[in-house]
Amino acid sequence: MTAPRFLVLADRDFGPLTSKTANSIIRYLPERTVAVLDSQLVGKTAQDVLGYGGAIPVVGTMRDGLALKPDAVLIGIAPVGGRLPEQWRTWLAEALDAGCDIWSGLHSFLADDPMLVEKARASGARLLDLRKPPADIPVSSGRAKEVDALVVLTVGTDCNVGKMTAQLQLVKELKARGQRTTFVATGQTGIMIEGWGISVDAVVSDFTAGAAEQLVLQGSKDADIVLVEGQGSINHPGYSGVTLSLLHGSCPDALILCHQASRVHVGDYRPGAWVKIPPLTDYIRWYEDIGSAVHPTKVIGISLNTYDLDDAAAKAAIAKAAKETGLPCTDPVRYDSAPLIDAILAARKGLTK
Amino acid sequence: MTAPRFLVLADRDFGPLTSKTANSIIRYLPERTVAVLDSQLVGKTAQDVLGYGGAIPVVGTMRDGLALKPDAVLIGIAPVGGRLPEQWRTWLAEALDAGCDIWSGLHSFLADDPMLVEKARASGARLLDLRKPPADIPVSSGRAKEVDALVVLTVGTDCNVGKMTAQLQLVKELKARGQRTTFVATGQTGIMIEGWGISVDAVVSDFTAGAAEQLVLQGSKDADIVLVEGQGSINHPGYSGVTLSLLHGSCPDALILCHQASRVHVGDYRPGAWVKIPPLTDYIRWYEDIGSAVHPTKVIGISLNTYDLDDAAAKAAIAKAAKETGLPCTDPVRYDSAPLIDAILAARKGLTK
Repeated sequence: MTAPRFLVLADRDFGPLTSKTANSIIRYLPERTVAVLDSQLVGKTAQDVLGYGGAIPVVGTMRDGLALKPDAVLIGIAPVGGRLPEQWRTWLAEALDAGCDIWSGLHSFLADDPMLVEKARASGARLLDLRKPPADIPVSSGRAKEVDALVVLTVGTDCNVGKMTAQLQLVKELKARGQRTTFVATGQTGIMIEGWGISVDAVVSDFTAGAAEQLVLQGSKDADIVLVEGQGSINHPGYSGVTLSLLHGSCPDALILCHQASRVHVGDYRPGAWVKIPPLTDYIRWYEDIGSAVHPTKVIGISLNTYDLDDAAAKAAIAKAAKETGLPCTDPVRYDSAPLIDAILAARKGLTK
Repeated sequence: MTAPRFLVLADRDFGPLTSKTANSIIRYLPERTVAVLDSQLVGKTAQDVLGYGGAIPVVGTMRDGLALKPDAVLIGIAPVGGRLPEQWRTWLAEALDAGCDIWSGLHSFLADDPMLVEKARASGARLLDLRKPPADIPVSSGRAKEVDALVVLTVGTDCNVGKMTAQLQLVKELKARGQRTTFVATGQTGIMIEGWGISVDAVVSDFTAGAAEQLVLQGSKDADIVLVEGQGSINHPGYSGVTLSLLHGSCPDALILCHQASRVHVGDYRPGAWVKIPPLTDYIRWYEDIGSAVHPTKVIGISLNTYDLDDAAAKAAIAKAAKETGLPCTDPVRYDSAPLIDAILAARKGLTK
């Protein structure tokens, strides 16, 4: 992939917990983000809205965004079900007319929309559907257990708690320490950042574990440590099947449990949430018990998302989680990632396959 | 649906554990099965091969099968991954030329094969892809927990142990006892038999639990008891995600654990099986613990598949499973289904939603 500069589309949804894809692009590719489009937050900066991202401006119209000369419009929200809001199609058409590519991680594929396809053909711009899985993914047979690398999967108490972000922080630090480490992207945002991967939640369910298996076999080729991006949660009413496919397909040797300290219900950030998040020790039992039913695995640390707490409350939450679980705990975005890095290196050392 | 008569295609795979779809059609729709095509078993009857199905003949060529005037050729095997063996396409073309419909439960859709589509168009025959999911399945939000009916899901120690068959036996008996009961088909064979349903394993994984939710909402409309066909197993390296989507999407109040007494490994009937089947009590813990993470559920009985054991060994296996688990146990195909029927009626009585 070349390195295009993005206009990030997050209309009426730009915020710390809602515009998940936008936020990760801003966090990991700020130098390639020209602006965010949100008609309700015009004039603010990414820093104002998210607390990071510096001076990246928020614009209110596609015209203002295109004036900043992006190479591509990147769809920065993931609506429930991942389908394209109808009203956005006219904006995308406008961008395509201007010769801008469109990067999308939605379940509904741009390439299935004849109007957009025609616009792209006319201007020579490209439609990139990053969630579209490759053809011919096999059924998993558990072959990922055979790789020599240490495989670490992030698992969560919910969607959108920081499973990808934790791995991106850890891969950076492990590489800085000279460890041959691969980040394996399993969702559209990770693919946008890393340049390869499969959105496992877009794979037909008989083959979802097979997709995870393929990714680990690929990611472990030149690495001693493979960090797999987790998805969903084992008690999420809608997405638990994706979570378990990933747990069994990737055969992780070690798990890092990710949680947002202030979260009360699964899916709290959307209306209608009702499954109460139980103690972290319940999750540890579930993930270890069910994960080990296919390949022995242990939770080796806790990654706590404390973005909405003040420093004292964040530190208290970290100490509480560590005490409750008896495991190393940190917020690897906000504080030192060393407790988790050390746990990974210890697991790598102890690995006998 | 009308009631077509089938030629069942199961070439080189017709047998008690391999040709799963064929076998269920023969068991539940014998009067509509004109023959089975298997070139290696020509001259035998279904009874010879399966131990049931009476005089239904095995033929060795499509011509011999078509001579018996079927209305449709039904694809009676489900290869791993569910894709169509290349060599069968010429047979299907021959059948279409003769005006026969094709019923398929494969993951590869007949309607995506231009040659078959053209043949069908020319003769007026129809291609029925029963595994093709409907469009616009929502993400599950756990709404199935709100239905008034008792929802009973079969769960298994593996694929292909009798999760659909158990429910078909139980629905028959519950209806005979005057209970308003619905069978909810979640796989292609159940759909062929029942006439409606969704193959949940063919649904994109973000929406698989949503498919289960839709089926339970539909199936509970005029019923006091809803029997949901289970899929896969919670420790199956390839299919566990489908299993968990079904467990969380259907919100069962009660579970019936299905096992084949002689099975040693998950997937034993195919090469490469390596996950050893643990004690039934492990499965009970897994299914209750993880199922109840979304909606409270209990295993209320064991359905034991003893088809390959003699009478004494079968009865001993049933007694052993009942003792190990402390739960009612029977082989509802071979023996009286009363222990499971009584457990379901007791659960229905105890249900307070």
